[in-house]
Amino acid sequence: MTPGHRSRDARLSRRESLLFEAGIKLGGVFHQYLGIPVSGRTAGSLARAIESAVGLQPFVRRVSVRIHPERGGPLGRGRFAYRYLVPEMLEVTVELVDGTSTVIANLRHRPDLRYPLMKVVRVDESERPGSVRGRRASVRAAARSARR
Amino acid sequence: MTPGHRSRDARLSRRESLLFEAGIKLGGVFHQYLGIPVSGRTAGSLARAIESAVGLQPFVRRVSVRIHPERGGPLGRGRFAYRYLVPEMLEVTVELVDGTSTVIANLRHRPDLRYPLMKVVRVDESERPGSVRGRRASVRAAARSARR
Amino acid sequence: MTPGHRSRDARLSRRESLLFEAGIKLGGVFHQYLGIPVSGRTAGSLARAIESAVGLQPFVRRVSVRIHPERGGPLGRGRFAYRYLVPEMLEVTVELVDGTSTVIANLRHRPDLRYPLMKVVRVDESERPGSVRGRRASVRAAARSARR
Amino acid sequence: MTPGHRSRDARLSRRESLLFEAGIKLGGVFHQYLGIPVSGRTAGSLARAIESAVGLQPFVRRVSVRIHPERGGPLGRGRFAYRYLVPEMLEVTVELVDGTSTVIANLRHRPDLRYPLMKVVRVDESERPGSVRGRRASVRAAARSARR
Repeated sequence: MTPGHRSRDARLSRRESLLFEAGIKLGGVFHQYLGIPVSGRTAGSLARAIESAVGLQPFVRRVSVRIHPERGGPLGRGRFAYRYLVPEMLEVTVELVDGTSTVIANLRHRPDLRYPLMKVVRVDESERPGSVRGRRASVRAAARSARR
Repeated sequence: MTPGHRSRDARLSRRESLLFEAGIKLGGVFHQYLGIPVSGRTAGSLARAIESAVGLQPFVRRVSVRIHPERGGPLGRGRFAYRYLVPEMLEVTVELVDGTSTVIANLRHRPDLRYPLMKVVRVDESERPGSVRGRRASVRAAARSARR
Repeated sequence: MTPGHRSRDARLSRRESLLFEAGIKLGGVFHQYLGIPVSGRTAGSLARAIESAVGLQPFVRRVSVRIHPERGGPLGRGRFAYRYLVPEMLEVTVELVDGTSTVIANLRHRPDLRYPLMKVVRVDESERPGSVRGRRASVRAAARSARR
Repeated sequence: MTPGHRSRDARLSRRESLLFEAGIKLGGVFHQYLGIPVSGRTAGSLARAIESAVGLQPFVRRVSVRIHPERGGPLGRGRFAYRYLVPEMLEVTVELVDGTSTVIANLRHRPDLRYPLMKVVRVDESERPGSVRGRRASVRAAARSARR
């Protein structure tokens, strides 16, 4: 190792691993579901199905998905009066936990950036694993971000 | 037009249009949902969500989706003890109707062919549009094919 | 069979089978590729990769894919200055052949309908299988439709 | 803030942000491309198209995709003699850079775990941004992991 180059091997802390895992979940949701036919009537059950799927993945304690079909632009007529899932419609928050570490991240389309932005909104570390206080704080944070 | 070449333009009969539309639905299901995390516990609600999505598309009167996670091969352990949707798990039947024409088609993985086969299992034409007799016959046919 | 209900089983003519198969291909393309990152620089190679994939499928003689990233609306800035594949960008023509039958179908976003319309643009039947005349006519038709 | 609960807001270090971003890329690849028809003949150009797509995303300096169709199990016959992309076939390495930080992560199916494992294989920090030494070391690490 030279002075100008400090290498750490990939032994990550729990916090760091959770950040990687949070990215996996959001990247996966974005690329899996675009194109699914959706309407105001079906948006809720589709969102629940996505939540159930993400909830199977490692470290996920909680996931909240909202689909806003009306953000998909003007609707066609008659038999074309439904939409396909596009990035603008998606709002996803995941909360991942490993021991005392918690990461909350979300995916929201940002009209100002013209981009579906994924970001980490909170990282928590509690000395007591799964402490009620820590959990509640995280859930509130997630709920807030899901509503923004 | 030469004698050896009879061309018809793309004015399709209703029956023909429905065959095209049935292909669209099954091709779409196959290519949309592979890769979604699934387990025995979530298979039912995922199947319902796919049915709702397909049900929004033109000409679809009925759609039945079954997901068999156990056909995905041996399971991993611990945090890896769930599966991703693969073609072997999928069984889909769609019934499309336009006026007096009905087409029923399905998608089932065929282990003997090592292939997810899509095929038309029934074409009906009834002189009375939407006649009870026609509808019942079609629904029975679809139900049979979904259970095989 | 009652007088008001003529049933035919699913023995399809070649022409009918090709219509079903053409739907499978277009429905599959639509639902497989949405969400892929794309720019003016990568659109061509992505289109070629989609053509190669569709070209593996049964009955496909020819496939033409065009991707128009600029139809994806205004671009983000800096690191967000690329797009994800959306239905508006896609223009696909497939030509399927079985014996003497040819079906040409395409997928194009129709701004007037606000809908990614898939339709059969030509059905040909030639008495001489794969006759040069028939092939040329079909290819011209497909090329025309791909450029419209 | 209670003693048992240290909260840090989501101000992440560059290293931490890159870990999140690396997860986004790998999660996205996994969920975007499964189901694409592929054969030995088309695997290379599909891999290149995926590399081009991922290469558009923020922070990506390098991406290497290998597709092994033969890992998809026994082949069908005749017109069914091709495969669809399944997780077993995929081997992806991404290298992300932000200033002096580098993260290399990969996706490989692990037969022993029956699972498509994504993991961070290297994290580097160099005092000189983009130093040749740091870049070479990273690229070698990525190459190694892509070949294992």
